Amino acid sequence: MNVPSQVLNPPCRTLLGAGPSNIHPRVQMAMAAPLVGHLDPYFQTIMDDTMALLRHLFRTENKLTFPISGTGSAGMEASFDNFLEPGDVAVIGVNGVFGERMVDNAQRTGATVVPVAAEWGDIIEPAAVEAALKAHKKVKLLALVHAETSTGILQPLGDMSKLAKEYECLLLVDTVTSLAGHEVAVDDWGIDICYAGTQKCLSCPPGLAPFTANEKALAVSQKRSHKAHSWYLDLSLLSSYWATGRVYHHTAPVTMVYALHEALALIAAEGLEARVKRHLRHGAALQSGLKAMGLVLHAREEYRASSLTSVRIPPGVDGGRVIQRLLKEFNIEISGGLGPLRGKIWRVGLMGHSSTGENVILLLNALEKLLLEEGYVVERGVGVTAAIRSLNA
Amino acid sequence: MNVPSQVLNPPCRTLLGAGPSNIHPRVQMAMAAPLVGHLDPYFQTIMDDTMALLRHLFRTENKLTFPISGTGSAGMEASFDNFLEPGDVAVIGVNGVFGERMVDNAQRTGATVVPVAAEWGDIIEPAAVEAALKAHKKVKLLALVHAETSTGILQPLGDMSKLAKEYECLLLVDTVTSLAGHEVAVDDWGIDICYAGTQKCLSCPPGLAPFTANEKALAVSQKRSHKAHSWYLDLSLLSSYWATGRVYHHTAPVTMVYALHEALALIAAEGLEARVKRHLRHGAALQSGLKAMGLVLHAREEYRASSLTSVRIPPGVDGGRVIQRLLKEFNIEISGGLGPLRGKIWRVGLMGHSSTGENVILLLNALEKLLLEEGYVVERGVGVTAAIRSLNA
Repeated sequence: MNVPSQVLNPPCRTLLGAGPSNIHPRVQMAMAAPLVGHLDPYFQTIMDDTMALLRHLFRTENKLTFPISGTGSAGMEASFDNFLEPGDVAVIGVNGVFGERMVDNAQRTGATVVPVAAEWGDIIEPAAVEAALKAHKKVKLLALVHAETSTGILQPLGDMSKLAKEYECLLLVDTVTSLAGHEVAVDDWGIDICYAGTQKCLSCPPGLAPFTANEKALAVSQKRSHKAHSWYLDLSLLSSYWATGRVYHHTAPVTMVYALHEALALIAAEGLEARVKRHLRHGAALQSGLKAMGLVLHAREEYRASSLTSVRIPPGVDGGRVIQRLLKEFNIEISGGLGPLRGKIWRVGLMGHSSTGENVILLLNALEKLLLEEGYVVERGVGVTAAIRSLNA
Repeated sequence: MNVPSQVLNPPCRTLLGAGPSNIHPRVQMAMAAPLVGHLDPYFQTIMDDTMALLRHLFRTENKLTFPISGTGSAGMEASFDNFLEPGDVAVIGVNGVFGERMVDNAQRTGATVVPVAAEWGDIIEPAAVEAALKAHKKVKLLALVHAETSTGILQPLGDMSKLAKEYECLLLVDTVTSLAGHEVAVDDWGIDICYAGTQKCLSCPPGLAPFTANEKALAVSQKRSHKAHSWYLDLSLLSSYWATGRVYHHTAPVTMVYALHEALALIAAEGLEARVKRHLRHGAALQSGLKAMGLVLHAREEYRASSLTSVRIPPGVDGGRVIQRLLKEFNIEISGGLGPLRGKIWRVGLMGHSSTGENVILLLNALEKLLLEEGYVVERGVGVTAAIRSLNA
C-alpha cells in the first residue's frame, strides 16, 4: 500500500495571529524530555507543581486548579457541562465568536440560555446583564468572555462580579486570550469558574485548558440531579485524579503537561506584573503604529486588549491576500476576521513569547510595505516610527 | 508570592505498563519542531498526511479518519455521543474496565444500554450478544473492546461483525490497545466506528485519539433529532475542520499532531504485518517466560493479547511492592490490576517501541530477582531461558 508521507520540516513562523503564539525554546525542549507514565510518582510531582503554578497564575487558592486534557474549547465545555442541566438558566454575554460558542455549549446542556448581546467590537454593558438577571427568576450562571479573541475587546469584570453576587449566580469567565497577558485575579474578582487555553499568552503549544473552580461552584456541581453529559470532562472524576486522590481517570497527556509546567515556570520567573506590563507596552506600540498608518482599530477605544488587536482592512485592499503575502514573504502569521467580521478586519496577536518590541516593528514594517504594494497610500515608515516612539515613551 | 517549581528532569523509564509506551527518538524530536498555526497551509499538509497514514493503519477508506484532540477516552466519548440519543438502544460487551466505561459513556447520552457481561479475563460470547440483539427490538449500536487493557483479552470480532450486519446495527470497536500492535482491519471487518489512543502500540505520547467512521455511521449521526451533547467532540463540526473544508473549529494540538505524524510514518515504514508479527513474537516470549516461572496468566488461553499480558500475583507476594521496586530499582514500569482485579494481577505491556526482545528479558530477569527476594520460590533463570527459546523459535 502506498502511503504518502513527507519528512516533518515546518517553517519558522513569527506567530502574530490569534494563537498559537511562539513558544520559548525551553518549552520546546520540555516536550522532548523522557516520557514517564501518567501514574509515575515523578509525574505526580510535576502535576503538583503545575497545579501550584496555575494557582499562582490564576491568582486563586482554589484546590481544584489543573489543566483539562483538551484545548481551550474543552475547558469551555467542562465549564458549562458540569454546572448546568435542564431547568437551569444561564445569562451569557455575546459580543463575538466565543460568546456565541458559549451559548452553543450551554444550550447543549439542556439549560435555558439568555444571551446578552452587544456589537462585535464593543463590551457587554453591566446594565444589560442586570436587566437579564432581573427578568429571569433564578439565574444559575453568568458567563462572560474576558478578552474576546474575535474582536480584541477586553471586558471589564468589576460590575459583573458585583451583579453575580447580588443575584446569587455563579460567575464563569473565559480567559483564553487574557490569562498571562492581562491581569486576571480569580479570587479577588469573585470568579467562580475560569478556564483558559495554553497557546495564547501562556506560550505553550495548544492542547490543554487551564481550569479552576472554587468550593461554591463545586458544591453546585455536586447538587446536580444527574451526571454531567461528558464522562471525559466530568469534574467529579477529574477532581479525584488531579486534586484529591490521583485515582486513575484518563491518561494525562504527559508531554503536554511537561510543556505547560515549563511555560508556567517561565511566567513565574518573569513575574505576573512585569508580564502584564510587557503585553501592555507592546500592544500599545502596535496600536500606535497602526493608527499612524491611518488604519482604524476595530475595538472600542477604552476597552482594547493588548494581547490581541483588531484592525479594519482599508477599503480597496484584499485582506486575505495581505495575510497570505505576510506568511509567504515574511513568514509572519496574522489572522483574519471571523463570522460577520470575515474580510473586514485583521487580528494581530502579541501574546506571551511573541509579545516583543522586535515583533511589533517587524510586522508594521512588513505591513506598510505590502499595503503600499496593494495600492494603499501610506507614508513609508510612519507606523514603525510611531511604534518606536511608543516603545521608548 | 512563593511558587514551588522544580527543574523538569524526568527519569528514563522502560515503559512496560498499560501505556504509555516508550516513544521513538524521532517522535520525541518531532515535538520540538517549530510550532506553526493550526490553519497554516504547511500544517494542513501535515493534517492530510496524518489522515492518509491513519487510514492506512486502520485499513480503511473512510474519508472521516483523523485524530480527536483528546486522549483515547475522548475518542470513546465521541464514538457514543455522536451516534446515540435518548430512545436509542445500545448493546455493549463488558468484560473489563473499558467495557464498563463504555456503558457509562453510552448512558450519559440518554440511550438505553444493554450490557452483555463476561468474566474479567474472558471474551464476550457471540451467542450472548445475539440473545441481547434479539431481545431488544431495534438496537442501534453494538460496542466491543478489541483488546481489553484491564485484562489482556483479545476479543475476536468475526462473529460480531456478522451479527451487526444481521441485526442492522452499527458496530463500534475500541482498538486503544490493539491498533498498530494487533491486526485491525476496519473495512474488511465491517467496523462502522473505531477509535484508539496514541500512547499504546502507536508509541506516541498520550493526548490524541485516532478515530474513523464510515458513511453509514455518518448518515446515522446526521439523522439525530438534536445536536450531540458535546460541542468539542461534535463530528459534524470536526468533519468540517478535518475532512471537508478546514473550517475553524477548535485549535488543533499542533505539536501532538507532529508527534502522531512521525509515529505513523515509522509504522508505515516498518509495515503493518511486520509490526503485528513483532508484537506477537515478544508477547509470546514474555508469556512463555512467565509460565516457566510458574506464574499463572490471567486471560483465557486462546484469546491473549500480545500487546498486554495479565499475570496473577502469586499467593504471599505483595504485588504493589513488586511494582514499586521494579520502578525504583530497575526503572521499569508495569501496571497493577484495576477494579475487581486490583491486587490480583500485574499487567505488562509490550507495545510499539517498547515491544522488544531486550525488554522481555530485562523484565523477566528483574521480576525473577524481586520475586525470589519477596519469598516466591523460582529457579533463577528459567523465565529468561524460556523467553529466549521462544524468541529463537
